[in-house]
Amino acid sequence: MQKQIFMSVRICASRNESRQNHSTEKESRANRWKWGTTTAGALLGLGSFLIFDTQRKKAALAESKKEPVPLHLFPQYTRDDVKKHKSPSDRIWVTYAGEVFDITDFVDLHPGGNRILLAAGGALEPFWALYGVHKSEHVIELLQEYKVGVLSPDDKEPPRDLSDPYSGDPSRHPVLKINSQKPFNAEPPPEMLTENFITPNVLFFKRNHLPVPNINPDKYELVVERPPGAKWAKPLKLSLKDLKTKFPRHEVTVTLQCAGNRRSEMNAIKPVKGLDWGAAAISTAHWGGVWLRDVLSDAGYSEDLPNVRHVQFEGLDQDITGTKYGASISFKRAMSKDCEVLLAYEMNGEELPKDHGFPLRVIVPGVVGARNVKWLGRIIVSEEESSSHWQQNDYKGFSPSVDWDTVDFSTSPAIQDLPVQSAITEPRPGATITPDHDGKVTIKGYAWSGGGREIVRVDVSLDGGKTWKVADLTGEETKGPTWAWKLWKLEATIPDEQKELTIICKAVDSSYNVQPDTVAPIWNLRGVLNNAWHHISVTVDKDEH
Amino acid sequence: MQKQIFMSVRICASRNESRQNHSTEKESRANRWKWGTTTAGALLGLGSFLIFDTQRKKAALAESKKEPVPLHLFPQYTRDDVKKHKSPSDRIWVTYAGEVFDITDFVDLHPGGNRILLAAGGALEPFWALYGVHKSEHVIELLQEYKVGVLSPDDKEPPRDLSDPYSGDPSRHPVLKINSQKPFNAEPPPEMLTENFITPNVLFFKRNHLPVPNINPDKYELVVERPPGAKWAKPLKLSLKDLKTKFPRHEVTVTLQCAGNRRSEMNAIKPVKGLDWGAAAISTAHWGGVWLRDVLSDAGYSEDLPNVRHVQFEGLDQDITGTKYGASISFKRAMSKDCEVLLAYEMNGEELPKDHGFPLRVIVPGVVGARNVKWLGRIIVSEEESSSHWQQNDYKGFSPSVDWDTVDFSTSPAIQDLPVQSAITEPRPGATITPDHDGKVTIKGYAWSGGGREIVRVDVSLDGGKTWKVADLTGEETKGPTWAWKLWKLEATIPDEQKELTIICKAVDSSYNVQPDTVAPIWNLRGVLNNAWHHISVTVDKDEH
Repeated sequence: MQKQIFMSVRICASRNESRQNHSTEKESRANRWKWGTTTAGALLGLGSFLIFDTQRKKAALAESKKEPVPLHLFPQYTRDDVKKHKSPSDRIWVTYAGEVFDITDFVDLHPGGNRILLAAGGALEPFWALYGVHKSEHVIELLQEYKVGVLSPDDKEPPRDLSDPYSGDPSRHPVLKINSQKPFNAEPPPEMLTENFITPNVLFFKRNHLPVPNINPDKYELVVERPPGAKWAKPLKLSLKDLKTKFPRHEVTVTLQCAGNRRSEMNAIKPVKGLDWGAAAISTAHWGGVWLRDVLSDAGYSEDLPNVRHVQFEGLDQDITGTKYGASISFKRAMSKDCEVLLAYEMNGEELPKDHGFPLRVIVPGVVGARNVKWLGRIIVSEEESSSHWQQNDYKGFSPSVDWDTVDFSTSPAIQDLPVQSAITEPRPGATITPDHDGKVTIKGYAWSGGGREIVRVDVSLDGGKTWKVADLTGEETKGPTWAWKLWKLEATIPDEQKELTIICKAVDSSYNVQPDTVAPIWNLRGVLNNAWHHISVTVDKDEH
Repeated sequence: MQKQIFMSVRICASRNESRQNHSTEKESRANRWKWGTTTAGALLGLGSFLIFDTQRKKAALAESKKEPVPLHLFPQYTRDDVKKHKSPSDRIWVTYAGEVFDITDFVDLHPGGNRILLAAGGALEPFWALYGVHKSEHVIELLQEYKVGVLSPDDKEPPRDLSDPYSGDPSRHPVLKINSQKPFNAEPPPEMLTENFITPNVLFFKRNHLPVPNINPDKYELVVERPPGAKWAKPLKLSLKDLKTKFPRHEVTVTLQCAGNRRSEMNAIKPVKGLDWGAAAISTAHWGGVWLRDVLSDAGYSEDLPNVRHVQFEGLDQDITGTKYGASISFKRAMSKDCEVLLAYEMNGEELPKDHGFPLRVIVPGVVGARNVKWLGRIIVSEEESSSHWQQNDYKGFSPSVDWDTVDFSTSPAIQDLPVQSAITEPRPGATITPDHDGKVTIKGYAWSGGGREIVRVDVSLDGGKTWKVADLTGEETKGPTWAWKLWKLEATIPDEQKELTIICKAVDSSYNVQPDTVAPIWNLRGVLNNAWHHISVTVDKDEH
C-alpha cells in the first residue's frame, strides 16, 4: 500500500545517487575504522564516528546548498509495508518517530555491527531504549540521510476478520522470534535481554494462551466476588479509575519467566508437548499498580481468615467455547506485605500494552508467569485452587519416568515459585567469536531465582565444566526479597591454542540452591522447569589479530 | 569399676548354665524361624516369636520353681563398664531401665537381625523409641533372662579434670559415629534416621563447636540487650522460670542439618577443611519453648523498626580465651509469625539435653544448624550481623575455583536457608542386599529442604541415573511452611541378572528446586552445602532364594 507513488520516484532516484556516494565512501571508512566486536568496543567507537560523520554531512549539505526534502513530499508506508523490507535483497527498512529509513547501505558502517539488523522491518525505538548512546542529535541527523518515507497516518489496525478470533491481536515487532502465531508466543533475541536491566515492553517476551481480548478501558470493571455465605465480605466492582484513585499506587521491579523457558533443550533430549521456547522466555519490567492486598482488604478480607486458602484470578481472554484463562495463588501470598502481589496497570512507566494484559493484570513476584494472569476480569477468594486447565492439568512438574499414559496431574503441586535459573545470552550457540587485542572475550547472561531468592553467584566455565570462574553481577539493590534477575558478565582470556569452546553457566541463589548439571534427569513430559546448566559451543576466530 | 564382685560370681555361673541351654535351643529355633531381612518382615515376625518364647519361659520357670534373683543381689556396673562390652569377644552388654544385660547369645535370635548390635555397650531406650514393637511386656520379660547386673546408683559424672575443658561434657551413646571427640561431633547410623519420623534425643546428631558449658538452671539468665541509644527498648533478664511462665509455650517440629552434612563425599573429590561428616548430620525433633518474637516484643521491638536488620545470638559455650560461640539471623525472620523462631527448653518432650543446649537454645526453622545457637546466653538486636568467626569466616559457600589462598569471606553471604537435600540411609554403601521372595528390595532415605519448602517428590534410580522411580513419602501435614523432612521408601524389583546396583536419590522441593547431579562442581573449600545426588553401590545376593 504505497501512496503518492509519483512523488516517490523522484525521491528514490535522488536516494540512489546518495547510495552510490555511500558505496564509494563505505570502503574508505571501512579502512579507517576498525570496530571491535564487543558491545563495549562498539559503543566507545561510536562517539568518534559520529563527530566525523556529522562534520562530513554538514559540509556536503553546505556544498550542495540542497535543503532537506519536506516531509509531506515523502511517500507514506504502512507498518506492513516496512515489514517486507528485512533483508539486503528486499532492502532493509526501519522506522523511527513515524519516519521510514532504508539503512541497507549503513549496515556495514554501523559501529554496533550487524546488531542493527535486529530492527530490520520494524521500529528502532526498542533498541535505542537498550543502547542509550543513540539518543543524541548526531545519530538522529545521521539517520535522516537514509529517509525514504513516512509512516502512513492511516496505519490503523487492519479491519478485523470476524471469523478469526486472533484478528484483534496487536501488531508486534518483527525482531521477536515467534514460537506460535495464534495464540501469539514470542521471545526476543537473547542478547537483547542483557543489554539493559529492564526489558523494553516491545521486546518483553509474549506468552498468550488465547486471543488478546479487546477491552474498552472506559467500560472495564474488575469484579471481586463474595464467596457464598461470607456475609462479612463486600463484593466489589472497580473501574480503572476506581483502582487508580481509591488505592495507593505502588511499583515493583519483577522478572517474569515462562515455565517453558529453555524447553527446546528438553525437547532435544526427548520430545515434549509445548512451545519450543529458547532461553529468552524471561524478561524484567517495572510494574505500576495497586497492591492486591489493599483491594482484598477493601473487600473485607484479613490475613487470618480461616478456610480461605486460595485467590483465583480469571482473565477476560477466552476460547471459542467461552472458557476463560485462569490461575490461582495462595491467600497467604496474596495478603502478605512481603510478597508484594500487584494489580498492574503500568509497565515500565507506560500504560500496560495489549499483549501484556491491558488494562489490568496480576503481577505475582517470584512466581511462574502462568499465575500472573493478564486482562484480569475477576478475583475469587476460595477454599479451592483455580479449577482451570492451566492450574490443574498443566504447569506442573513430573519425574522423567512419567509419560502421557501414566501421568496423574493430581499428584503434583501447581508450579508457583520457580527454581534458580541462568543462561548465556551472548555469544549465541554456534557463533564464531573473536577475542579482543588482549585475547579476551566477553560472555553475558542472566540469572534469576523464584520466591524472592536473590542470585548470589554465577559460575562460568569455558572448558565444559572442568574449571569455573565467577562472573560479575549487576542488579538492583533490594532490602527485602529480590524479585528481579541479575545480569552477569565475564571477561575471560582464551588460551592461544583454543579453537572451540564449550561455555557453561550455573547460578547460586540466596538459599544456596544450585542448578542441576544436565537436562535428562529433570526431563518431564510438559517440558517445564528446565533449569539445568546452560551450555553453548562456539568457535574461536583469532585470525583477525 | 565392678562392685559386689563376690556376688557376681555366683550369678554369672548361673548365667553360664543359661547360656548353654540357649546354645542348644538356638539351633532349633534358627531352623524353625526364618526371619526376613527387611524391617517390615522382622517386625511382623516378632509377634509370633514373642508368644512362643514367653510360653517357653513361663514353663521353664514353673518347672524349676526358681524365683527371679532379687535386684540387690546383682552386681553394680557403671556406664563406662558397660561400654567395654561391645563385641562378642568381650560379650555384648546393653542397659535398659537401670539394669544391665548380656545379650551376646540373643544376637542371632533377634528378629530384627544384627541391628541389635547398634545398642552394644549402651542403652536400649533410644532404639526401642524407634521400634515401637519392643514396648511390650513380652519383650521386657524376655530381656530379663539375660540380666547380669544393675547400673550403679553412684554412676555420676566422673570427677572433672580441670585441665581439660571438655571434661564436663556429658556421656554419649556408643552407637554414635564420632567425627571429633573434643569438641564432640557425632552422627547416628544413617539407617536409624529413617526408622522414625522423630529422631530420639540420644541419636540426634551432635555438633558442638566448643566444650559443653555446665549451666546451673536455677541461676541461668537470658539477657536481651538494649542497643545503645534505643531508649524505647527495654533490656531484659529472664530466668528459665520467667521464660516458662511469662510467655506462652509453643511447639514446632523442625529438622536441623549441619552445613557439613555429607562432607565426606566432597572430601573424596578434593580435600576440604572440616569434620568428615557422613550423611547423618541431620535429624528431626519436636521442640518446645517460646517464640523469639514474643520475647523481642516484650523487650519493645516491633516488626517495622528501621535500622534493625539482625538478631545476634551469643552462646554460653566458650574457648579458653573466653570467645563465645555466636551467630545471627535477620530481624525480619526473628519477628515473623510465619518463620516460627523458637527459644527452646524442650526436645521431644524432655528437658533440653546438655549436648543440645541445656537449658535454652534457638531453633530457627529451615535454617542451617549453625544459626540455631545452643546454651543461649545473650540476644543482641543490631544493624549488623554477628561478628563471630562462625558467621563471618565460616559457613559460607564459594565457587570451586576459590582456594585458601584466594578466599575472601566477605564476598559470600552467610548460609541461612539450606538447599534441597536427600540421601539414602538403607542399605549402606557397599552392603550386600538380598531381595525378598518376590525379588524386591526396599530402599530408604530422607529428603528435606530449607526455608520452609516442602519436599514434593523423591526420584530413585537403581541403574545409576538412567531411569527413575518415584518413592513413597511420609511426613507431617502442615498448613504453612514445612520445617521437617520427609522420609521416603521405595520397594523395587531387581532384574534377575543384576548383581551390582548403583542406587541414586534426588529430591524436588515445593519451589521445584532440584539437587545437582555431581559433587565436583559444587565443591568448596569448607566442604559445606553438599546436596548433590546421593549415590551408593551395593551387591545383590540372590543365593538365599
